[in-house]
Amino acid sequence: MVPNEEHLFQGIHILGELYGIEAELLDDVKLLEDALKEGIEASGATLCGFQTKKFEPQGVTILGLLSESHASIHTYPDKGALFFDAFTCGDRCQPVRIAEALIKALKPGKSNLKSVRRGEDTGTGAPLTLESEKVFTEETSESVSVC
Amino acid sequence: MVPNEEHLFQGIHILGELYGIEAELLDDVKLLEDALKEGIEASGATLCGFQTKKFEPQGVTILGLLSESHASIHTYPDKGALFFDAFTCGDRCQPVRIAEALIKALKPGKSNLKSVRRGEDTGTGAPLTLESEKVFTEETSESVSVC
Repeated sequence: MVPNEEHLFQGIHILGELYGIEAELLDDVKLLEDALKEGIEASGATLCGFQTKKFEPQGVTILGLLSESHASIHTYPDKGALFFDAFTCGDRCQPVRIAEALIKALKPGKSNLKSVRRGEDTGTGAPLTLESEKVFTEETSESVSVC
Repeated sequence: MVPNEEHLFQGIHILGELYGIEAELLDDVKLLEDALKEGIEASGATLCGFQTKKFEPQGVTILGLLSESHASIHTYPDKGALFFDAFTCGDRCQPVRIAEALIKALKPGKSNLKSVRRGEDTGTGAPLTLESEKVFTEETSESVSVC
């Protein structure tokens, strides 16, 4: 975030669900954190730290605090699925890259991603409504560019 | 989250921006954490822990890891504004209560809140698209019910 004159009150929020993932991958904390780190680096954001919780009997939540906001995953091994979001303030980062890194690491059978532009258009001073920009529904193969 | 048979792969994600807040409130970590705690309790969710970062020269990010997913704020004292989101899996919690607690504590001049239903409709097995349900634009007075 680093709110200063260079950082506008606006950003892009990616919401997504990935389906059809092998269950053991969704309980592998190191794999999940490594994929998030790789994606955060590719997005141009800066990772300040992870808060990670492994649930019993299964499932992992990882919250990444970014200088530009946050990224999270919540995994459901019994469903072969996870929830993902990544929000980056300003216009410098590409949070969809984080989703791409997860897709590369986890090879889901299907992914739904939505991009929401948030905040104020400081060019005009007018608040932007929280509007949907795009909805992706991809039947993914090994590697898919989602944006 | 606690993914088990009682927890469906679905949930509600609230995205919001609050505007017109006194700058010093947006740098007050204790006030912000207390408001989030109060809201999380009211929502019916369980807080596992906060990850908090105070930025220089100003601004705070707080990520709350919930048993049911997460809640976050990113404040911009120089803009008198903050970004908020709260995601709760399952159908037991009301994440909008967290936004209401922030509104009560910070008394913004305006709030934009959006509710997004996410995940799979396990009744039919069909994935739900990430659809917008409602957009609120409230000129808030002391206390506003946003949902």
